[in-house]
Amino acid sequence: MLIFGKMAPTSLTARFKQSVTPASLRAYLAEFISTFFYVFAVVGSAMASRKLLPDAAADPSSLVIVAIANTFALSSAVYIAANASGGHVNPAVTFGMAVGGRINVPTALFYWISQMLASVMACIFLKVTTVGQLVPTYTIAEEMTGFGASLLEGVMTFGLVYTVYAAGDPRRTSLSAIGPLAVGLTAGANVLAAGPFSGGSMNPACAFGSAVIAGGLKNQAVYWVGPLIGAAVAGLLYDNVVFPAQAPDSVREVSEGVSV
Amino acid sequence: MLIFGKMAPTSLTARFKQSVTPASLRAYLAEFISTFFYVFAVVGSAMASRKLLPDAAADPSSLVIVAIANTFALSSAVYIAANASGGHVNPAVTFGMAVGGRINVPTALFYWISQMLASVMACIFLKVTTVGQLVPTYTIAEEMTGFGASLLEGVMTFGLVYTVYAAGDPRRTSLSAIGPLAVGLTAGANVLAAGPFSGGSMNPACAFGSAVIAGGLKNQAVYWVGPLIGAAVAGLLYDNVVFPAQAPDSVREVSEGVSV
Amino acid sequence: MLIFGKMAPTSLTARFKQSVTPASLRAYLAEFISTFFYVFAVVGSAMASRKLLPDAAADPSSLVIVAIANTFALSSAVYIAANASGGHVNPAVTFGMAVGGRINVPTALFYWISQMLASVMACIFLKVTTVGQLVPTYTIAEEMTGFGASLLEGVMTFGLVYTVYAAGDPRRTSLSAIGPLAVGLTAGANVLAAGPFSGGSMNPACAFGSAVIAGGLKNQAVYWVGPLIGAAVAGLLYDNVVFPAQAPDSVREVSEGVSV
Amino acid sequence: MLIFGKMAPTSLTARFKQSVTPASLRAYLAEFISTFFYVFAVVGSAMASRKLLPDAAADPSSLVIVAIANTFALSSAVYIAANASGGHVNPAVTFGMAVGGRINVPTALFYWISQMLASVMACIFLKVTTVGQLVPTYTIAEEMTGFGASLLEGVMTFGLVYTVYAAGDPRRTSLSAIGPLAVGLTAGANVLAAGPFSGGSMNPACAFGSAVIAGGLKNQAVYWVGPLIGAAVAGLLYDNVVFPAQAPDSVREVSEGVSV
Repeated sequence: MLIFGKMAPTSLTARFKQSVTPASLRAYLAEFISTFFYVFAVVGSAMASRKLLPDAAADPSSLVIVAIANTFALSSAVYIAANASGGHVNPAVTFGMAVGGRINVPTALFYWISQMLASVMACIFLKVTTVGQLVPTYTIAEEMTGFGASLLEGVMTFGLVYTVYAAGDPRRTSLSAIGPLAVGLTAGANVLAAGPFSGGSMNPACAFGSAVIAGGLKNQAVYWVGPLIGAAVAGLLYDNVVFPAQAPDSVREVSEGVSV
Repeated sequence: MLIFGKMAPTSLTARFKQSVTPASLRAYLAEFISTFFYVFAVVGSAMASRKLLPDAAADPSSLVIVAIANTFALSSAVYIAANASGGHVNPAVTFGMAVGGRINVPTALFYWISQMLASVMACIFLKVTTVGQLVPTYTIAEEMTGFGASLLEGVMTFGLVYTVYAAGDPRRTSLSAIGPLAVGLTAGANVLAAGPFSGGSMNPACAFGSAVIAGGLKNQAVYWVGPLIGAAVAGLLYDNVVFPAQAPDSVREVSEGVSV
Repeated sequence: MLIFGKMAPTSLTARFKQSVTPASLRAYLAEFISTFFYVFAVVGSAMASRKLLPDAAADPSSLVIVAIANTFALSSAVYIAANASGGHVNPAVTFGMAVGGRINVPTALFYWISQMLASVMACIFLKVTTVGQLVPTYTIAEEMTGFGASLLEGVMTFGLVYTVYAAGDPRRTSLSAIGPLAVGLTAGANVLAAGPFSGGSMNPACAFGSAVIAGGLKNQAVYWVGPLIGAAVAGLLYDNVVFPAQAPDSVREVSEGVSV
Repeated sequence: MLIFGKMAPTSLTARFKQSVTPASLRAYLAEFISTFFYVFAVVGSAMASRKLLPDAAADPSSLVIVAIANTFALSSAVYIAANASGGHVNPAVTFGMAVGGRINVPTALFYWISQMLASVMACIFLKVTTVGQLVPTYTIAEEMTGFGASLLEGVMTFGLVYTVYAAGDPRRTSLSAIGPLAVGLTAGANVLAAGPFSGGSMNPACAFGSAVIAGGLKNQAVYWVGPLIGAAVAGLLYDNVVFPAQAPDSVREVSEGVSV
């Protein structure tokens, strides 16, 4: 997975100009396509489960369906976007990359817009083609608190973003080949553990798109606060503690990126 | 995945001659073998589900069976044919490649014949060895329209062909190693989302073969029109917008390929 | 996957000597270990299904269990033996390799002995540690004939051995990295299609080991005749028709290997 | 997968100093993170199954859930830690590596502490966020003996550690790319076979963490004795018998490592 590029910190205007080059526009389109198909598979597989079994939310086979849809779709979405945008497919990943200085802030905002738009479009597409099947939203188990659910989502997102960092690390040499698979496998494993508890989103765009179309933004904070914090911690920990760069330059760059 | 080769546009006769070389004949045989085993696994797994559970079409486990049969069989079918034919295994992929100028039209027609023949043979083989078990066909959920189903199949085929283009892109360097897996994972993810709605074919040969043997060509248009359009758009978008070649030659070649 | 080595055709005694070198003995041990764990997972997963659900043979989830056990275990068994023995893990594969001239006949016989012994040991181990749980054997659907089942097993074994040839083909360059996965995926896809019909063995050692311990060698011919013929055809077709070597030497070698 | 490094045998004090370098501390942190997410997915997926279906332990779908959680989570956990710690994620693997001379004894002890701590933390985290859901422990089928269960776990751990050795063997060249997948696939295949019999742990840290939080250390010996013996045998067999190093140095190093 190619990283979108470490840009030297400059003025906001100059940065914004860097964000509307042809290469950047292609990156936004790549994010749109990948996020569309990821959300299509994740939300669609939950709709397919309910179509087959009205009480699918309480069936172990449905958990298998949603978890492998996550793994298959995310691996493939990261794969197809890798060379154009880095394959974030997730606002939390983009946030983690921005905190880690791998992508500048205006570019990150355009990534977010692409991802959110793609998610909403995928849910509209599902609703229209299936003639009004209900689009499901992520729900939290009754006995749980919103704080607990956000903590759970945050820790899982930490794992996901940490894996994205590892997958995009050029020091991995031959292991780079399976980077997109590792990202998808992490997502699927987490869904298998947390599906019946917090839903296993780890992706604010996916949670937002389905909630907008289903018509209720309840609990959105749960799927944003935890994941964004988890993503930021993952980026900082990977770059600065577990796999620090030999050259001190990149460490400096990160601290400057945060101070701007 | 090796691309079958960009042939310089020449007269139709010269092109036809290029389509009956020993290398081309081997490519057709490779397509036949791969498509046979892909259709065998996809249609066979649906038959296996029904053998175990007569009402399998409404069981989540059966969706898992058909989806992972798609992923496993397509990954492996693309893998074994990659060096000989590019591993299309699907008339929509061949169409997308022809529109993108990666394969010339007479060769594409021979690919189609191989794929269709392989699909019909696989369904006959299943029907004969299992002593007259019913060969299932793709069906559309009652509440849906044919147009909606074809749109759904078309968008999913767009995703599949886009992934095939990405998997065969030599600029991906180390990621090329898992190209066939990415193609299979895309197919499986889409089946998990669309299985109970439009069937999740994305492959006109598979839809045609099973329909011929089951004895009803109803809804065939759904599984041809959408997928072929989706495939063409994917090919054009990948080559010209998201991952354009640096050299202007190849862009010219594409436009000429369409004008012929 | 490294091929065990193309030995120049010589006298039977000289060949036998080549079959008892330290490298050969290590190859037999590697085949034993890999086949043991493959049969352990395949037969064990069928036993696990029956432990959970006495009528597991008629449950779609059990088909998923056995199919993914096949894919996971075969991929990993081929992987760990690749550098020592070529990772056959299957007498039909060894037969196909011998017919294709990739391994000499005495060595192939020792491979067979290792594989059969490993399969029997794995089934004994399962029976003893689970305190007398029934070891299941492959069964054929009531309405099917033995000939039909053997044909089905033979065609699937053709697909498996063809994939093994592709996975071990050095001309695949970067695709070689996922060779063991492709082999496992082929096996799993075939099990999903044929599980409830012929069992989906494709491996005479696995069928033999479970039958010996379960105490009935009925239908053994079904799991030997078809697979061995399918394997031989796959080897000849791959090497001579679909992917012939550029150098005429290797083609000659194959024909000599058959004539001996 | 990078091996943590073969350190020349020296005095215990010097060795201890080697175990508190910045690189070592990063390795312990990497083991902590990977083990945390592995245990989170394995124990969490069992909890998710029970949440959906109170009698999940007797349902085939739940076996699928736990097995693929193992494969997905272990592949990804090994992947993300590979360059920092070698990706053991399991005290039995660390023990096998120490017996094989790949890691010195003080370092191995710090690995164990990281792994045990991570496992306990993951189980506490699951218990707290899910508001007191029961954390499950590995159980042995009623008819089985503790000795039989430990033998089963030991043989499976042999397979797992043997795969870890193969995955980290630089002589595998291009196959190294999928090493972490091979490790995860071995674990999942074994869980599918042994889940309903001995639980399919193969990982003393995972068994310990869940038992501590569930409040009962019954049967812990089963999940330690067999796996540690199996791991040691795997390490010795791989390095000395099946894939011996050409250079006699490394063989000497192993024997010295054991004598210290």
